[in-house]
Amino acid sequence: MAEFDLIELIRSRCAITREDVRMGIGDDAALLAVPAGQLLAISTDTLVAGVHFSLQTMAYDIGWKALAVNLSDLAAVGATPAWATLALTLAQADACWVADFADGFAALAREYKLALVGGDTTQGPLSITVTIHGFVAEGAAVLRSGARVGDTVYVTGTLGDAVAGLRCLDKNDPHAKRLLSAPPGTRESLIERLNRPTPRVAQGLALRGRASACIDVSDGLLADLGHICTASGVGAEIDADALPSSSALLALFDGEARRTLQLAGGDDYELCFTASATEGANFLGDLARCGCAATRIGRIVAEAGVRVHDSAGRAVLLPRLGWEHFA
Amino acid sequence: MAEFDLIELIRSRCAITREDVRMGIGDDAALLAVPAGQLLAISTDTLVAGVHFSLQTMAYDIGWKALAVNLSDLAAVGATPAWATLALTLAQADACWVADFADGFAALAREYKLALVGGDTTQGPLSITVTIHGFVAEGAAVLRSGARVGDTVYVTGTLGDAVAGLRCLDKNDPHAKRLLSAPPGTRESLIERLNRPTPRVAQGLALRGRASACIDVSDGLLADLGHICTASGVGAEIDADALPSSSALLALFDGEARRTLQLAGGDDYELCFTASATEGANFLGDLARCGCAATRIGRIVAEAGVRVHDSAGRAVLLPRLGWEHFA
Repeated sequence: MAEFDLIELIRSRCAITREDVRMGIGDDAALLAVPAGQLLAISTDTLVAGVHFSLQTMAYDIGWKALAVNLSDLAAVGATPAWATLALTLAQADACWVADFADGFAALAREYKLALVGGDTTQGPLSITVTIHGFVAEGAAVLRSGARVGDTVYVTGTLGDAVAGLRCLDKNDPHAKRLLSAPPGTRESLIERLNRPTPRVAQGLALRGRASACIDVSDGLLADLGHICTASGVGAEIDADALPSSSALLALFDGEARRTLQLAGGDDYELCFTASATEGANFLGDLARCGCAATRIGRIVAEAGVRVHDSAGRAVLLPRLGWEHFA
Repeated sequence: MAEFDLIELIRSRCAITREDVRMGIGDDAALLAVPAGQLLAISTDTLVAGVHFSLQTMAYDIGWKALAVNLSDLAAVGATPAWATLALTLAQADACWVADFADGFAALAREYKLALVGGDTTQGPLSITVTIHGFVAEGAAVLRSGARVGDTVYVTGTLGDAVAGLRCLDKNDPHAKRLLSAPPGTRESLIERLNRPTPRVAQGLALRGRASACIDVSDGLLADLGHICTASGVGAEIDADALPSSSALLALFDGEARRTLQLAGGDDYELCFTASATEGANFLGDLARCGCAATRIGRIVAEAGVRVHDSAGRAVLLPRLGWEHFA
């Protein structure tokens, strides 16, 4: 299959019409109109085969996740998704694989009326770079740097599921036998969280003007909350017993094992945010109406760093901090 | 070297201040202001090690070229460069390599006051995806689709140099011995054209409102002019003897060998454009003042396809059409 056929295959499966796309795929550059009064929000994320997903991952899931992780970055600043470009590097031009990949990408794109406006297909080791574009009114974006001492720390959804799903897929996991004997649907729900994360776009939009700081949990809660603390010049204290857990995670992991997955496991793509005590109470209801409740997990303090305690106030020994390339 | 140190190394070497960058590297998304009345032009290009550049290529040149090929896409539509994101996938976090890469990228970025506003560094087989953003007034972009029967076809600079440079680097080239005995500086000037292409940004800006269609020559003249013809619903006739040649190319290749390099060789990043006969004559002087003259190489005709003849009117047999991934 030739390069131009590949591009046409992807284009046709991701076709979404937007009035602000003056020129989409097919020229040297896309031409796009940003609404008056809005800033352009841009983020980019790469997924590499064997690093960000296993070689067994289905093409549909890879397409979904490549867009999901980028949508999650827009969600974290409270931007409305608009357009994306897709740089797809493939070892072979397998039409079935590319069609499935495009379908996974398009399923999520349609949900947000996001238009694929350009890209590049090249031959090489499998890797995907999506660059995403959205809008946010000037002054309305929620940044990492706004956390203040006394703010409450929240997280949407549940934590630890994606990395638990990764362990469920690992035949060499020390608990592989126990994980395989889990109740029906348990492993599958965790693996689904790994392979088809839900970007918290509606929640991110609901946080504008109310949260003081926000980040998406891609590297792990401790690492990502650490980024908020560094950018804001503050610290945080987390109650490990308050971390929200899915029933699947509770069924398969307990004690320190679960805590480690929740504190250090990445790839959940939940939003971790801070808000003043009064603000926080006000909009938790709005978040729940977006289909994903938020949980209070700690507070912002003056002393730098992120510390974890249990509900009895005892310090919790920290696992390794988040995912780190080149570590 | 850890991921965050790498990002800081790249950021510090590419630091360029622009008032329209409200939030650059360091949050989940960059926040940027597009000027009123301007469309956003976006393009993305990936370079893969072993495919787009050899493993012997210097890091500085890879950084330069990764940005140059993207600037060339903006040039082709007549957009003014503004911002870029950089997705860098590296096998090892080699600080020296990354510093050299960033210096090459930054050298070209500074020339155009282009700000690096975000990116992603990941571990994996070496590959670089740049997504570039620029501005062009609504209605002013030069598209591929505007060529009309009777228009003249032009190309900036000289053709065939980059692919000739590639042959100079190939120890197994059938003429390797002759190429190595070239006059001093000849091989080097061709290799420089391959590794540090000059994007024709000023020329692209000068074409706005005057050229009827434009594309950059990345895949080879025949392939890229073919894209103009397809998008415009026309054909083209090219005079092979009119193709502009550098003195280095003339010194090393002649006859059919040179013709093939010029018609099918990619990677030159010159602009191929069309203009009505009266318009064309008017702005050739402006282009020359941008430091890169354009040459008249043919004309647009009604019959589909690109045909090549020599100055005596004899048909020239066409080489394989341009670079094609997955061919």
